[in-house]
Amino acid sequence: MQDHGGNLDIAIARFGGPAEDWIDLSTGINRGSYPVGEVPARRWRALPSRTDLEALHGAARQAYATKAPVAVLGGVQAAIQLLPYLTRPGRARILGPTYNEYAPTLDAAGWQVQETSDLDALAGVDLAVVVNPNNPDGRRHDPKALLVLASRVGRLVVDESFVDAVPGLSLAPEAGRKGLLVLRSFGKFYGLAGLRLGFVLGSEADVAAFAAMAGPWPVSGAAIEIGQRALLDRDWAAETTARLAHASLRLDDLALDAGWRLVGGTPLFRLYSVGDAIAAQARLAGARIWSRVFGSQPGWLRLGLPGNETEWTRLAAALRST
Amino acid sequence: MQDHGGNLDIAIARFGGPAEDWIDLSTGINRGSYPVGEVPARRWRALPSRTDLEALHGAARQAYATKAPVAVLGGVQAAIQLLPYLTRPGRARILGPTYNEYAPTLDAAGWQVQETSDLDALAGVDLAVVVNPNNPDGRRHDPKALLVLASRVGRLVVDESFVDAVPGLSLAPEAGRKGLLVLRSFGKFYGLAGLRLGFVLGSEADVAAFAAMAGPWPVSGAAIEIGQRALLDRDWAAETTARLAHASLRLDDLALDAGWRLVGGTPLFRLYSVGDAIAAQARLAGARIWSRVFGSQPGWLRLGLPGNETEWTRLAAALRST
Repeated sequence: MQDHGGNLDIAIARFGGPAEDWIDLSTGINRGSYPVGEVPARRWRALPSRTDLEALHGAARQAYATKAPVAVLGGVQAAIQLLPYLTRPGRARILGPTYNEYAPTLDAAGWQVQETSDLDALAGVDLAVVVNPNNPDGRRHDPKALLVLASRVGRLVVDESFVDAVPGLSLAPEAGRKGLLVLRSFGKFYGLAGLRLGFVLGSEADVAAFAAMAGPWPVSGAAIEIGQRALLDRDWAAETTARLAHASLRLDDLALDAGWRLVGGTPLFRLYSVGDAIAAQARLAGARIWSRVFGSQPGWLRLGLPGNETEWTRLAAALRST
Repeated sequence: MQDHGGNLDIAIARFGGPAEDWIDLSTGINRGSYPVGEVPARRWRALPSRTDLEALHGAARQAYATKAPVAVLGGVQAAIQLLPYLTRPGRARILGPTYNEYAPTLDAAGWQVQETSDLDALAGVDLAVVVNPNNPDGRRHDPKALLVLASRVGRLVVDESFVDAVPGLSLAPEAGRKGLLVLRSFGKFYGLAGLRLGFVLGSEADVAAFAAMAGPWPVSGAAIEIGQRALLDRDWAAETTARLAHASLRLDDLALDAGWRLVGGTPLFRLYSVGDAIAAQARLAGARIWSRVFGSQPGWLRLGLPGNETEWTRLAAALRST
């Protein structure tokens, strides 16, 4: 079991307090969620039909500006779980440091896995993984450079879990060509991680292989209902993109005032160099604000964005006292 | 893609009519669903935590009268999707005819798969699959005989998707011993198939392997919330078991009056020998009632149970005119 953000039960076990007192900024999940609305009874009761899934695929294609084949899965994590079985195990390289599930999941299924911090060093392998923009440091890669890389590996996985708020960076419009797999998360930008929804965009054959591995009912009826509604709501996406861009700069200002240095980030989270991150996390936890630290990088602390003015006020106060 | 019940879009494409006019009896999903109730905002927004999952595991253990290790998955189908990867491919035998996803899913992942109708012929293989009670014919196996079989194969999968209403048949209390895997569906008995929820009960090592393959967030927050509430509601389960037992006999009476013969069934569905099943399905479809037929058995028609008196009246009328 890897360490993840969103593990508020660990925060409560260590620092106490009821769950509702905590502001969980340990993830990059948008705290200004898309409104869930009503879920009709049939979505709970009936098995999702092919027609239901195809309508959701259509909504995803529209939101992601692509005509590529699409498979729906229970989040990008579900795609990562299946990735090792897409082909026979071979050599995989991951551009790191990055999201910590790729390496152990591939390794456990018999892949030879290396992590490298050099994009060019990915060339030549059977499977290359790039998270763009990267988590946790926000590192970005030119889509054109990634397309060149895609032609030099067996398969290139571009994990775009955090791309929604920087859509110009997305390779979704180029998906469909052989060897390129684009993973899109629903839950982070739409602030509905509990829904478990994500998409794989790729070649006809690869998408069919994911769909076959996921089976006939890969996500819940509620995920189809709410996901489809949200993906088709381009006004909400545009307003949210603008709001997050502004809010991430606001967070940087507070962090700078606290003496922290921005390492990087996306409009959904910011990574700061804070000196002793464990100590900084504990100070924030004293104010019931949960953050993410990284064992391998003792100076790094990652913060998601507060969701309303009450949360901003509490965070500002906590940062002033650190 | 296998043929399944619950594919109402196919019925509509062939026979017309708006979806809301149809009574879908093509599955064994209880049409008297457990009430969904409220889903708190955090279940939609936050990633399910370890604590959330453990609470759900506890509820499942209580409902299934077991102390065995439990892994939660997005339905029994999700367990079937992962089953081929639990160990290296070897020889699998399936007691058939039965649910049509086991054979192709194992076969696609490199297993040597045979179907047999003789329970004893399962002995000696690496992986044996028995659905108890069986779908679609309701065939039942003595749990004691299955325990003996479990000791004579590498692993015995007992798919108990339809056991909730005949709980004395369940091997869940015996789960935990090496080589026995019990699969439990949530959606069928509770009438919430769209939730995508199911469980694997087995040895510590096997359950850990399923949990690792499913990843840290195997089901939605709504599935955890509603599933936990439903599994702990033993009064509803007892009332529903009694209601289904009565309703299944009522359905048999109607079918007998229509000149059909009972092949077998469970309290959630009945299988009849009807002569020309395709023709019988079409006649029911004329009354906007959808049923399940089986390509390999041209005389068989399976019906789920109507959910209310309006549905019973329409079904009775349709059966009188066949």
